[in-house]
Amino acid sequence: MFYVSDRTAITSETIGHSLLAQFETAPDYREVTIPYVDTPEKGAEVVTQVNAAAEADGEMPFVFSTLADPVTRNQIHESRGLILDLFEGFLGQLEQALGAKAVVKRTRSHRISNLSSYEARIAAIDYSLQHDDGARIKDYDKADIIMLGVSRVGKTPSCLYLAMHFGIRAANYPITEEDLSTSQLPVPVAPFRDRLHGLTIDPKRLASIREERRRGSRYASIEQCRSEVRQVEALFKSFNIPFINTTITSVEEISTRVVQTRGLDRHTTV
Amino acid sequence: MFYVSDRTAITSETIGHSLLAQFETAPDYREVTIPYVDTPEKGAEVVTQVNAAAEADGEMPFVFSTLADPVTRNQIHESRGLILDLFEGFLGQLEQALGAKAVVKRTRSHRISNLSSYEARIAAIDYSLQHDDGARIKDYDKADIIMLGVSRVGKTPSCLYLAMHFGIRAANYPITEEDLSTSQLPVPVAPFRDRLHGLTIDPKRLASIREERRRGSRYASIEQCRSEVRQVEALFKSFNIPFINTTITSVEEISTRVVQTRGLDRHTTV
Repeated sequence: MFYVSDRTAITSETIGHSLLAQFETAPDYREVTIPYVDTPEKGAEVVTQVNAAAEADGEMPFVFSTLADPVTRNQIHESRGLILDLFEGFLGQLEQALGAKAVVKRTRSHRISNLSSYEARIAAIDYSLQHDDGARIKDYDKADIIMLGVSRVGKTPSCLYLAMHFGIRAANYPITEEDLSTSQLPVPVAPFRDRLHGLTIDPKRLASIREERRRGSRYASIEQCRSEVRQVEALFKSFNIPFINTTITSVEEISTRVVQTRGLDRHTTV
Repeated sequence: MFYVSDRTAITSETIGHSLLAQFETAPDYREVTIPYVDTPEKGAEVVTQVNAAAEADGEMPFVFSTLADPVTRNQIHESRGLILDLFEGFLGQLEQALGAKAVVKRTRSHRISNLSSYEARIAAIDYSLQHDDGARIKDYDKADIIMLGVSRVGKTPSCLYLAMHFGIRAANYPITEEDLSTSQLPVPVAPFRDRLHGLTIDPKRLASIREERRRGSRYASIEQCRSEVRQVEALFKSFNIPFINTTITSVEEISTRVVQTRGLDRHTTV
């Protein structure tokens, strides 16, 4: 699988992974990403690599391509790969619908096109880091979302993804044994009921994650993990806080579901 | 612009933004993302929304769609939008090439398909947070990359993106005035020359960012910022450390260039 682009190739990779995920039994493959293919020389290099892979494996390589320049695009089509070219099909349709021609902007894209939206994303990352793990309980009124969960359930990566991708100010607050013993919401987050979102996890998985941190501790024992998970889920239910299980759910999906459940805006423009 | 998917819609958004970035003068548009369109009922709701937008604006909405199920896919095609359907064209080509049928997996995708690769990404985020801003200088031998730069140049978001997206353990170390006065690499990072990557920034932009943190301080003055930037760039050059300007470069592009310059692997599979 080749992911080829005149820019970062992040789009090519995303498309490739989405398409390959549609097949039950994905074939064994090796992935090669080639960003910044923005000259005929680099185009020729890609063709050489694709043809060498075809030769070596005796199989047709797949090439997921987002090349805006017709020159390099045509080069790639001369290779021995199966070319899945995002721009070929769609750009023509968009040009017609918009009544405008696409412009080859070799170096400008994936640069910052919308500074205020980009700065909002960076500010959201700052906010989320400052408000990680209950580190700072001031300014919760400025949070878009406050994630709750027991220690090591996976609050931090989800908050960082929400901030990084969706420009959402995501704080997170750890639910401790002491909180659980009261069956009440922790005081700092209680005033923000409609911004709370819970995370839970399979107790066995939690125990194995905690083991890595404090081997053999009560904190990492399966009994302790079972008890905390049972109580925290009861807490979420009793206060009507939606929650998601992180055991089998990726940060991408957790973030999307949180955004949807809480009716937040996704600020994804770069 | 509608971004419609039976999953997170992150792919639809990525495709839409990539395509729209090809036009010099993008039209004014409103963005609506509709994830988890996985039943005919939800498909019908999308059609209603798209048609209502067409009615309200008197213009044809664009619908970037990644719907695997032919039933909902056909529904959407009955709407009054211009449908840009990733799966329609490419899935058939892939099916033929792979000699396999795509399977409608309504709920499984963007879940964790490759646990070890996902865990590596989460571990990279942990590592990068622990090694943010010189907080921990142990374990630099386990870093894939160590980003260097003056205070507020933008080290943290770049490191977090590298970890989140590419599964790269990215530490970062702040270059202080004291470091600059010696014209030497800071002692903790000096042994890791081939893992260092620099960041720089326009001094005016740096001053405005620092102003937000400490208004009216020497730290935020334009003279101070000019001097630090000049010296840090000289340092990078004298030690042959590649560097990127964060003023106009997004975290996506910074990360891609760092990966490319340092020959790192991108671990992007979810």
